[in-house]
Amino acid sequence: MSKSIPTREENYSEWYNEIVKRADLAEHSAVRGCMVIKPYGFAIWEKMQRALDDMFKATGHQNAYFPLFVPKSYLELEEEHAEGFAKECAVVTHYRLKSNPDGKGLIVDENAELEEPLVVRPTSETVIWNSYKNWIQSWRDLPVLINQWANVVRWEMRTRLFLRTSEFLWQEGHTAHATEQEAVEETEQMLRVYADFVENWMAVPVLQGLKTASERFAGAEETYCIEALMQDGKALQAGTSHFLGQNFAKSFDVKFVNKNNEQEYPWATSWGVSTRLMGALIMAHSDDKGLVLPPKLAPIQVVIVPIFRSEEDLAKINEKIEPITNALAEKGISFKVDDDDKYKPGYKFAEYELKGVPVRLAIGLRDLENGTVEVARRDTLSKETMPLDGVADHIESLMSEIQTSLYDRAQAFQKANTTSVETWDEFKAAIEKGGFVVAHWDGTDETETKIKEETKATIRLIPLNSAEMMGKCVYSGNDSPRQVVFARAY
Amino acid sequence: MSKSIPTREENYSEWYNEIVKRADLAEHSAVRGCMVIKPYGFAIWEKMQRALDDMFKATGHQNAYFPLFVPKSYLELEEEHAEGFAKECAVVTHYRLKSNPDGKGLIVDENAELEEPLVVRPTSETVIWNSYKNWIQSWRDLPVLINQWANVVRWEMRTRLFLRTSEFLWQEGHTAHATEQEAVEETEQMLRVYADFVENWMAVPVLQGLKTASERFAGAEETYCIEALMQDGKALQAGTSHFLGQNFAKSFDVKFVNKNNEQEYPWATSWGVSTRLMGALIMAHSDDKGLVLPPKLAPIQVVIVPIFRSEEDLAKINEKIEPITNALAEKGISFKVDDDDKYKPGYKFAEYELKGVPVRLAIGLRDLENGTVEVARRDTLSKETMPLDGVADHIESLMSEIQTSLYDRAQAFQKANTTSVETWDEFKAAIEKGGFVVAHWDGTDETETKIKEETKATIRLIPLNSAEMMGKCVYSGNDSPRQVVFARAY
Repeated sequence: MSKSIPTREENYSEWYNEIVKRADLAEHSAVRGCMVIKPYGFAIWEKMQRALDDMFKATGHQNAYFPLFVPKSYLELEEEHAEGFAKECAVVTHYRLKSNPDGKGLIVDENAELEEPLVVRPTSETVIWNSYKNWIQSWRDLPVLINQWANVVRWEMRTRLFLRTSEFLWQEGHTAHATEQEAVEETEQMLRVYADFVENWMAVPVLQGLKTASERFAGAEETYCIEALMQDGKALQAGTSHFLGQNFAKSFDVKFVNKNNEQEYPWATSWGVSTRLMGALIMAHSDDKGLVLPPKLAPIQVVIVPIFRSEEDLAKINEKIEPITNALAEKGISFKVDDDDKYKPGYKFAEYELKGVPVRLAIGLRDLENGTVEVARRDTLSKETMPLDGVADHIESLMSEIQTSLYDRAQAFQKANTTSVETWDEFKAAIEKGGFVVAHWDGTDETETKIKEETKATIRLIPLNSAEMMGKCVYSGNDSPRQVVFARAY
Repeated sequence: MSKSIPTREENYSEWYNEIVKRADLAEHSAVRGCMVIKPYGFAIWEKMQRALDDMFKATGHQNAYFPLFVPKSYLELEEEHAEGFAKECAVVTHYRLKSNPDGKGLIVDENAELEEPLVVRPTSETVIWNSYKNWIQSWRDLPVLINQWANVVRWEMRTRLFLRTSEFLWQEGHTAHATEQEAVEETEQMLRVYADFVENWMAVPVLQGLKTASERFAGAEETYCIEALMQDGKALQAGTSHFLGQNFAKSFDVKFVNKNNEQEYPWATSWGVSTRLMGALIMAHSDDKGLVLPPKLAPIQVVIVPIFRSEEDLAKINEKIEPITNALAEKGISFKVDDDDKYKPGYKFAEYELKGVPVRLAIGLRDLENGTVEVARRDTLSKETMPLDGVADHIESLMSEIQTSLYDRAQAFQKANTTSVETWDEFKAAIEKGGFVVAHWDGTDETETKIKEETKATIRLIPLNSAEMMGKCVYSGNDSPRQVVFARAY
């Protein structure tokens, strides 16, 4: 902990990198664009996975696993999809290395070239729909409700830990339905699941809506998304749910016999969230002292630091700690007692602040005399001394209090940083200031592109179920049936 | 369920394929050598993962995630390791596809060749030790106890579902220690964890021991393994734990300052089990009617089939089923009530037998009158009619009874198929008959190779802690200090 972390104000981007590094969440690997997720970071991701997986299963989905490799010919089958992913594919062309005849080391064996190149999956629609061809014959086989937890690769030239890496971890749901309506309902249901997770587990409020045509997933009829606002005023797409229509069914010739004994193409959805959520989690709540974690996703919810000079003191303090840890264990609250004597309490306090542990207890000899304990909250950095009796109950209520309070703070921030504008000047000023900017748009690609070129702002989403409200496009002045949400984004 | 499954007697290999297929566990994908793990198969794998993961964490390990890609130059650094894996590597040479200028589709973009080829990880020692270089500076940083759940690729020409596929799922533990002794203890501890899991969760007894030099992991000083016996008399390596010495530390120049302030190389271990365990699970217990699952790993532990002709009957039966399912839920026993009216009870019974559901309850109208229920066990195929009252308690005890009984049966089979031999003729006859063959070996590579060439039998392991017992090598007649275990193997 040599140099101090730059503040968010000083350098938001550097602040983010330092938090990720110092809280031991992840690091760049020597493999270009690929990250190493370190144990503490991975423990948070595991908590996210568990919560999401439970939600997927509660909505009727099952996990499965499909191949890492996509034959080039599969990728070609859905034209838009191919175009969307071709430029960022890691391509396997050979299946063997051999000793270098001219010297040391290994070289690619030119006699082991694949007949057809394989792409490392950037997403699995093609491989999965190729399997669904065998799984789906009759309406009785529908719906197919599958999820996969997997690694995917999209080659990136400029990477940022968690936010944009060539390899990332994600889940991808792929479902098939007998009717269009059912597929649309599934798409919307999974968007709600994502919003529920991000809001109630990550404590990050989101907007829900539709992407414009130009921002849609390659191969989708409609892309739904949730968007969150980071502390620097930039938006982050936190999850997407795609209504794929019959596109992949047609490309892979998947048909089923409906109840009227007619051949039909099933309707598809796909939906995913990734380790990018880790970036959102970090950026939404953390402060200049380090990571701030919502209790529901914190690997360690409570750290207990005994303050002692001798083994004897420690033994006395431990006697008081034991009933607390027993009570916490019973309540299912995770904790760590740090009685390492190599580091001073002040060092430890800073370390657990850096790591975002929601609650810290400190107990010294004076506390023993007084029957008290110091309870510190990571989110507010407030401290109070309270009686030892009942501290576990207090912590339990703190867990939900902190969870709620982080959400409320993030929501207040989002509200304070959402601006509705009427004129182009107002628009530019609001974008420059940061945050969500709500404005009329004439619905054309051309205007969308011009606005992006001139301000770097994109249309984050068209709000769901927004009532029609006529107005004038903020850029072209043409008629507009509804307002949309703009922002600069990650 | 058109054609019947061949019996194990008729065609063991075909029987295995049919079980995997008909129980909906996995299927070949159109991508050469890669499998699709279907939801029912994946649910079993998830149960394995959860149990193993808990055991890893209970022994102090944390999960992390390292890159999918290994730069060619890393692989080269440890010479034996490089030699061992070079011949079966999927090699990424390009990072982009482009539209085919001469026609339809995509081609590899020759302008997007990587400066250095990347290998899809066949195992992660090299990538991980490259990271450990930054993690390990002082004795205070040790031990490092990391596990990773991941997909790996080892190119295979001849594949079998679960047993040998080009891509498979596994976990790989990678630890670093300050002393040789500690690393050896870790290696042995993880072997015991694997043996514990395979025996107590999979209900498959194993032998524990050391591999001979020729069967060691490429780059290891010592490979420990567990070996299980399948019903066709062939052995299956179910898990390996490697003591890597300082080989990878030296190759990647990882050093730490010890307590005496001297620079030293840390000592390493790695250990792994894979989806191959699914193959072992299937082959160890299943019978000619289908899959047989130990209760601890069964996605559905109890299936309840109401036998009814009308909705009215069903409603009456459901009244009796409800208290049972409530009691099962309370006991944490997973169940499924199958009241689908599209299929007859007999069809359902066969289906759940095929899928290896450990216990089946059937309740019809006559049972209602008598206050009884029919309870069928999958492992013994026995049925009994018993009072409805107390059936949940009975099922609870059946769960552990079946678990134990499967283990006992497999252990009796292993015992009956383990033969100790003295002469070469006895040896050949015993290998031909199948099973583990215990015999003296003179300890030379040459004899090991000859035996393999002449009988297709390999040394599965040198038993751990076996007392010295002089004898004559079964092949060469030379002196041998101890017996080893031979078998033909998967």
